[in-house]
Amino acid sequence: MSIQKLFSAPLQVVNVGIEAFKETCEKFSPPSIQVDWRPPVDVSPESEAILARHATKIEKANQKAMEIILAGTPKLVGLDIARNVIPGMTENTILHAGPPITWDRMCGPMRGGILAGLVYEGRASTIEEAEKLASSGKIQYAPCHEHGTVGPMAGIVTPSMPVMVIRNEKFGNTAFCTLNEGLGKVLRYGAFGDEVTTRLKWMEKTLYPVLKAAIAHSGPIDLKNLIAQALHMGDEVHNRNRAGTSLLYRAIAPAILATCESKEDAVAVLNFINGNDHFFLNLSMPACKATLDAARGIKGSSIAVVMARNGTDFGIQLAGTGDLWFTAPAEVPDALYFAGFTKDDANPDIGDSAITETGGLGGFAIAAAPAIVQFVGGAASDALRYT
Amino acid sequence: MSIQKLFSAPLQVVNVGIEAFKETCEKFSPPSIQVDWRPPVDVSPESEAILARHATKIEKANQKAMEIILAGTPKLVGLDIARNVIPGMTENTILHAGPPITWDRMCGPMRGGILAGLVYEGRASTIEEAEKLASSGKIQYAPCHEHGTVGPMAGIVTPSMPVMVIRNEKFGNTAFCTLNEGLGKVLRYGAFGDEVTTRLKWMEKTLYPVLKAAIAHSGPIDLKNLIAQALHMGDEVHNRNRAGTSLLYRAIAPAILATCESKEDAVAVLNFINGNDHFFLNLSMPACKATLDAARGIKGSSIAVVMARNGTDFGIQLAGTGDLWFTAPAEVPDALYFAGFTKDDANPDIGDSAITETGGLGGFAIAAAPAIVQFVGGAASDALRYT
Repeated sequence: MSIQKLFSAPLQVVNVGIEAFKETCEKFSPPSIQVDWRPPVDVSPESEAILARHATKIEKANQKAMEIILAGTPKLVGLDIARNVIPGMTENTILHAGPPITWDRMCGPMRGGILAGLVYEGRASTIEEAEKLASSGKIQYAPCHEHGTVGPMAGIVTPSMPVMVIRNEKFGNTAFCTLNEGLGKVLRYGAFGDEVTTRLKWMEKTLYPVLKAAIAHSGPIDLKNLIAQALHMGDEVHNRNRAGTSLLYRAIAPAILATCESKEDAVAVLNFINGNDHFFLNLSMPACKATLDAARGIKGSSIAVVMARNGTDFGIQLAGTGDLWFTAPAEVPDALYFAGFTKDDANPDIGDSAITETGGLGGFAIAAAPAIVQFVGGAASDALRYT
Repeated sequence: MSIQKLFSAPLQVVNVGIEAFKETCEKFSPPSIQVDWRPPVDVSPESEAILARHATKIEKANQKAMEIILAGTPKLVGLDIARNVIPGMTENTILHAGPPITWDRMCGPMRGGILAGLVYEGRASTIEEAEKLASSGKIQYAPCHEHGTVGPMAGIVTPSMPVMVIRNEKFGNTAFCTLNEGLGKVLRYGAFGDEVTTRLKWMEKTLYPVLKAAIAHSGPIDLKNLIAQALHMGDEVHNRNRAGTSLLYRAIAPAILATCESKEDAVAVLNFINGNDHFFLNLSMPACKATLDAARGIKGSSIAVVMARNGTDFGIQLAGTGDLWFTAPAEVPDALYFAGFTKDDANPDIGDSAITETGGLGGFAIAAAPAIVQFVGGAASDALRYT
């Protein structure tokens, strides 16, 4: 039937795919036929049979997981030092992004971040010394996700680093995340050197105590509320966090003033946050982590509670499969590269920040943030389609 | 031709209205016919003939006005007291919103605001005294717009009130606006009494000097830049200003800290701004005023540089007609009323805030701010249609 004749006779529709399309057609023409078909999944017939046998149970478990995820109430309740609060954090522990990985398989940016961390901790005075220690077997590397923590990019957390404490009040579980360093030469991108160490020390000695006192003064900050607003203000809270950072800033600035004895420090802290629109990322991430962790341990649930990359592997964890990781090679993203660089120069994907997508935000809410689609790759029309 | 047969033969289109529709049709079918027709305007044949005779001149003048409006660069350059900076402001002057109006024709909210202003100025100690003075003929009432100023709602400006000074750097002209009082019982809604006076005094004695010092320290704030961002963050900068207020707050908080000697005052000022998402309205309005005023005095231009209401009359001024006002009765808006109230209880429209629409923002950019369409009347689909 040519398109010219499409409307000259009653439509007879066979619909393959989303049922809503068939329902709309039926409003205007005789009953249509719905074909029960989904894109084939590349699994063995045995696995498929197992899934089919447990379909009802899985569906029910997923329903329960979704209820828990939707009911989560993540709040920023305070700040502390990693060694004091992160479960299982020893003096020799270094946490990293993504699924488990050994030193020999780590990518450059992750190794760089670890070296920066060892120098920052005073465990090495030169990068050469740090490299020797890092590969000596004395350091225990573990995924942030296995310690209730998330970290953007390399995701390195060492014992002295300040972390924000996010509590899912509804379910009582807690998540942790370091403070965002800003852009440029920073540890999470794998940079090391004096500039990196100096900033990390300032964050520990000035930013941390000022924010800790302010949050103690202001009381818990409702992150679900801030995220909901930010999504209506051009953020998708992964790669764009300008609105979230602004709303957080408004909420805590009076508390910083009220509690900080040194005017110079208060100004420096406000300028630091004002100068870094990614500041809120390190809150949207643990907010999602705290929300999703509450849905762990639901037997039979196939809902992902972790998606994370370590620069070598991409790993997921499911609500129903405990601490098991399912991994595959990390891919190199289609993104906006600096002039003169292409995908060939890029490291495979890295960071725990995909926890925002796991929670339904970030890339899955990118229609809310048309301003950053080119940065993450694509066009505004793609953004609408993805969401 | 029935809709069923619409696509069974080549389309033959006669298009009345926007030409782009015809152009699209022609991509898919033979040339269409464009009818040169516009909705009839209710003017006398004489006026129409005059307009037709000057059409080319008007078009050229409007082009020039548009260039000036688009090139405007409004910046917040400082704060001062009305009597020091507003041209023609005497001790007996009271500015009001909208076109000129005498005391006897003023609506209740405008009269209430004037009484509040006289008590605030110490010109009367009771409302009865203020009423006597207000109607005595001693007070010179004048539109804000005739003094380079804009005021939301009643728009009352008395000599002691602090004003923000907005400079259109590109063209060198200046506009003024008072500081936003927040919601509730406030002068601009026509309220008077101790609560109103106390807040106005606090704004003069605390808010004003703190902000004045902060802006002197930070340097000019680029309002065009902030407005452009706010439009992408859910504001239309008339009835919603949450993003604009947030971005402004981020920009000035460090300067407030750096310059304010009293911690208590600094906290109070930050809390005041943080507690009032309309704070930025009193900047988006004079930003538009400063931008549009630069296009005054272009002979022959029919572009509106003012649309304003005084609660009785609606008035406009054009780029090409100097200080002349064209007025008509103000209408009662379709809006969201408090429970138990309807349009019958409402005062006709009031305020200079339509300067944002005159500048192409506010209602003409409301698709940017779906969250407030019910508040101003209508639905999200209307918002898209209006923009």
